[in-house]
Amino acid sequence: MIDGKRVQTLYLDEEDQSLVVLDQTLLPGEIRYRHLRDAASVADAIGRLCVRGAPAIGVAAALGLYASAWTFRNEDDFAARLQEAAATIEAARPTAVNLSWAVARMRRAVQGLSGAQACLDALKAEAKRMYEEDRETNRRIGRFGAALLEDGFGVATHCNAGRLATVDFGTALAPLYEAKEQGKRLRVYVDETRPLLQGARLTAFELLASGLDVTLQCDGMAASAMQQGLVQAVLVGADRIAANGDTANKIGTLPLAICARHFGVPFYVCAPFSTIDQACADGSHIPVEERDGSEITDLWYAKPMAPKGVKTRNPAFDVTPAGLISALVTERGVLYPPFDLRTRG
Amino acid sequence: MIDGKRVQTLYLDEEDQSLVVLDQTLLPGEIRYRHLRDAASVADAIGRLCVRGAPAIGVAAALGLYASAWTFRNEDDFAARLQEAAATIEAARPTAVNLSWAVARMRRAVQGLSGAQACLDALKAEAKRMYEEDRETNRRIGRFGAALLEDGFGVATHCNAGRLATVDFGTALAPLYEAKEQGKRLRVYVDETRPLLQGARLTAFELLASGLDVTLQCDGMAASAMQQGLVQAVLVGADRIAANGDTANKIGTLPLAICARHFGVPFYVCAPFSTIDQACADGSHIPVEERDGSEITDLWYAKPMAPKGVKTRNPAFDVTPAGLISALVTERGVLYPPFDLRTRG
Repeated sequence: MIDGKRVQTLYLDEEDQSLVVLDQTLLPGEIRYRHLRDAASVADAIGRLCVRGAPAIGVAAALGLYASAWTFRNEDDFAARLQEAAATIEAARPTAVNLSWAVARMRRAVQGLSGAQACLDALKAEAKRMYEEDRETNRRIGRFGAALLEDGFGVATHCNAGRLATVDFGTALAPLYEAKEQGKRLRVYVDETRPLLQGARLTAFELLASGLDVTLQCDGMAASAMQQGLVQAVLVGADRIAANGDTANKIGTLPLAICARHFGVPFYVCAPFSTIDQACADGSHIPVEERDGSEITDLWYAKPMAPKGVKTRNPAFDVTPAGLISALVTERGVLYPPFDLRTRG
Repeated sequence: MIDGKRVQTLYLDEEDQSLVVLDQTLLPGEIRYRHLRDAASVADAIGRLCVRGAPAIGVAAALGLYASAWTFRNEDDFAARLQEAAATIEAARPTAVNLSWAVARMRRAVQGLSGAQACLDALKAEAKRMYEEDRETNRRIGRFGAALLEDGFGVATHCNAGRLATVDFGTALAPLYEAKEQGKRLRVYVDETRPLLQGARLTAFELLASGLDVTLQCDGMAASAMQQGLVQAVLVGADRIAANGDTANKIGTLPLAICARHFGVPFYVCAPFSTIDQACADGSHIPVEERDGSEITDLWYAKPMAPKGVKTRNPAFDVTPAGLISALVTERGVLYPPFDLRTRG
């Protein structure tokens, strides 16, 4: 809650049929919602990372396509304009799988229908269904995960797999919200998550806005927090989970898992089943994106804070071996090792 | 070398008898040396962290006191002014043990002497002796440490225990400089070292200036570098070593030690014997400074990058248990576990 109002990543404003998104590029300094009413604005908001996180992007695309269609509902060339709007939104971030998946679902929803109103009704219903599905997945991960957390626990987390990356509770943060609703008092230790500071900017922001007890620390401080007995569980999300349970997640997850094992702290990966890549036998087959070194040497800073010409190493993710993962919290339940995810897809 | 000139932390300019220090507050953006000729300027340079690192501070105080005395060598009240200058320099940073230790040594050097010239000669000799002692300690740590490094090794380090913290080679970085002089080719992985970025600003700078192969990475990336087989040894310094070998060093050292153990990479602490605190039985007795949270939420940044009101956890150091330390590299040789440092002080 910020000033008594719950922070929401995105929603459909039923009064003016617009897609409303919280502009995440302004966080944590400014809370501003943007009302998006046409495909170009929706594509721009996704492209500029006003809305981010695979589940959130998918639902934003769907609701945004409906909002866009509503503006030209009375035009003669409704069908053509709908195709055009879908193409515009789909092109916002070419590499985001959820984006094309969401637009494809919306296209299927109007297949065979005739008349703008029938299409409009179908688009709205399908977008809201996707919204509700994501919400339900979040809630279920939250309930399964919360059962692993006891009153008084200190919980460490890394990066942002929360409300701001989904439509509702998030994945790794869902158990925290659920546990709070159940009356459990938790202390949450948030890694700032260098280089892009998603922990400091997004996770600390959304947990604080929801009234949780949040402590922000640098990534290298998590080990000493565990050593001092402050942490009883670690919750992280996942970008891709191999069939054997090896998990790719934001860079800095692996050392957290190793330290958790060293100090006997359970390490939980929270993710929907859609994150499991059946085609990937183990972590060695997960490609890790290498990003521009300026994120380390320059970004967010008023002046360079590394010598000119220094080489950088800037992998966006690391792979945590399944052997370091205590359990996998999914919308279908909690899975314990040894993981064999091939038969469950 | 920067433009063919070796970077030096501090030295006595024999031409004008001034203390010359590299202004570290301007690094890595600007290389500017300051010529200091009076006690007030020396105290100011130490107080503003133009010169930093316990060994460097001690030697700067000694050379600075001599340079200051030289300016009033022809005054009638030489003795009184010398006491005044010593007091000014000693008060520059009240908590720096090396500062009062160095000034005390300089005071003892002139005890019983009469006449400005005799005092001046004694001050210069004592200051240069301290300079040479620190240099010799650095070189010896360098030689012992270099023997542990093989041609082709990748070496990870954290924070800055280098040239910029001492008069010459540094402690943790000394083996790298020595190994390079021996013709060994190394790849050095430097942790940026949040929150104050000593790795990015200072270590990357000085290693690069000396022509080493440097790669800068965020602290949370070291584990994946080890996982990928890029790192064959870890070298760190120490702020205080307990009698059982437990070692306090810059926050983020402990997770590096835990990950090194996990991946079977040797973890070496490089420090002079003066770092060993005989009065401290083990790490639980080492007090850890908690610093202001604005270092995490604001420092170095053009705009705040964490939500207003968030709590922070900002310990300046962590304690690495002796059991995770492969060896202690000192100026007297390499010590292997089990460490019993009580009898060797």
